[in-house]
Amino acid sequence: MSVDFQGWTNTHLARFEVVLEGLLPSADAAPQRLHEAMRYSVLQGGKRVRPLLAFAAAEMVGAQLSRAHIAATAVELVHAYSLVHDDMPCMDDDVLRRGKPTCHVQFDEATALLVGDSLQTLAFQLLADHQLNDVASRQLEMVKLLAIASGSRGMAGGQAIDLASVGKSLSVPELEFMHIHKTGALIRAAILLGANCGNPSDEQLAKLDHFGKCVGLAFQVVDDVLDAEADTATLGKTAGKDADNDKPTYVTLLGVQAAKEMAKQLHQDALESLSGFGDSAQHLRDLADFIVLRKY
Amino acid sequence: MSVDFQGWTNTHLARFEVVLEGLLPSADAAPQRLHEAMRYSVLQGGKRVRPLLAFAAAEMVGAQLSRAHIAATAVELVHAYSLVHDDMPCMDDDVLRRGKPTCHVQFDEATALLVGDSLQTLAFQLLADHQLNDVASRQLEMVKLLAIASGSRGMAGGQAIDLASVGKSLSVPELEFMHIHKTGALIRAAILLGANCGNPSDEQLAKLDHFGKCVGLAFQVVDDVLDAEADTATLGKTAGKDADNDKPTYVTLLGVQAAKEMAKQLHQDALESLSGFGDSAQHLRDLADFIVLRKY
Repeated sequence: MSVDFQGWTNTHLARFEVVLEGLLPSADAAPQRLHEAMRYSVLQGGKRVRPLLAFAAAEMVGAQLSRAHIAATAVELVHAYSLVHDDMPCMDDDVLRRGKPTCHVQFDEATALLVGDSLQTLAFQLLADHQLNDVASRQLEMVKLLAIASGSRGMAGGQAIDLASVGKSLSVPELEFMHIHKTGALIRAAILLGANCGNPSDEQLAKLDHFGKCVGLAFQVVDDVLDAEADTATLGKTAGKDADNDKPTYVTLLGVQAAKEMAKQLHQDALESLSGFGDSAQHLRDLADFIVLRKY
Repeated sequence: MSVDFQGWTNTHLARFEVVLEGLLPSADAAPQRLHEAMRYSVLQGGKRVRPLLAFAAAEMVGAQLSRAHIAATAVELVHAYSLVHDDMPCMDDDVLRRGKPTCHVQFDEATALLVGDSLQTLAFQLLADHQLNDVASRQLEMVKLLAIASGSRGMAGGQAIDLASVGKSLSVPELEFMHIHKTGALIRAAILLGANCGNPSDEQLAKLDHFGKCVGLAFQVVDDVLDAEADTATLGKTAGKDADNDKPTYVTLLGVQAAKEMAKQLHQDALESLSGFGDSAQHLRDLADFIVLRKY
């Protein structure tokens, strides 16, 4: 990781945490327990990969970064809601997230259900409540974009396919279909929402979308490799969970070596889609490197 | 109920069911089970009070009714999502809704969780994906309005307060605070979204908002009376549930007679707020009558 990229990441994440904290309801406001649990579920750190992708995409098209911070908050709230619901006993039944008890363990199941519901609602509220583009119709497009990426034909649909796949043997294309929805859609949305805070050309959007598709899938392949190879302490979540749950992964289907090769190829494809954009796309390239080379 | 009102209701609801059906994902589209469960949870009938209020409000301000049908669908999807999640074992743990098995009973808990999540997302998608007003910035206001009404300081917040109140003795103002959030906020939003499909004046919006506040609260008071007095077959959901769950209601706090008096007073207040609008507000008045005088 270059010194410049590390500095850029630190600066933006420090600022983002302040923005995020300020956009969440205060724990003093009624209903306090719900608001406390919402803050607990969002302000626990995490890699903030989606926000960083949004900032880098905004930077590439010359958008106002303050607007990208709001758009990135909306995406991160959708991501956080999906984790809270995904960890619940009727889904993955996980007790540990980012090294801390999951929301339903720390609070209770009913609260976790309402936390997820309310974080999703807040995401859409933010996209409507702040000026994110000079053109209101483009801002409506941003609402639509996030909705399609997170709904039954995006992230939530991917989770449904994931549930249905437990104990089944999937083909590689079927696994890819699942992940393009479950994690890929929201990663692509993060990039496109960041860019839509500016005035991107159709060509820029198309290239960014392809970049997002590649890094979104690479992110999942690397996750599968890490789940198989790393330990719980490094990951901050329960390792080996996928194999224990009899879930198909790139590692179980392809083996570790071929999964690593696949990540490498997706990494190359991602970088190629940005080849025409020079220095303005450097932080997107750095993020692609980070996603593929990370150890946790 | 007047002949005119009955005809108006029948016409609009017949059309609404077609619109609603067409806006839900097809059960043939992947993930099929999720889409089937979404359709099951929305297309089971119900009184459709919120859509009817949206149509009547749109009518009062001379808005295009076809736009109000889309806005009403968004509100009804949020209502349906809240019922699916509210019926889950970690919340009210109810097995019967509109005379049929609840979503998690008919399908499974994980599917019910994703159904609720996806219905909420679809609501916001619809508000962004269809032209509901000539002015895009007003349409963004509609997104914001629905989000605030349904989030942690609206409907979901009301449910959190409801959960926290089980087994406690609330005062009447505390009970009112809960219901203004839990059911009132979305009923008000239905009315305001219908009106915002047109170009309402600030005075019209203020009067409609007051009307919505009164009928929203009246709706809940009448619900409590019906829960105490009617039987399961008439209601289509488990009767006497509130008392069994040791939940405070207007009936347990005030007694049946005083609760009925309160509904009557709210009904009067609602009608008074529309006194300046003549025939254009007639269907809103009819709906206020229906909400207070209904038997199920």
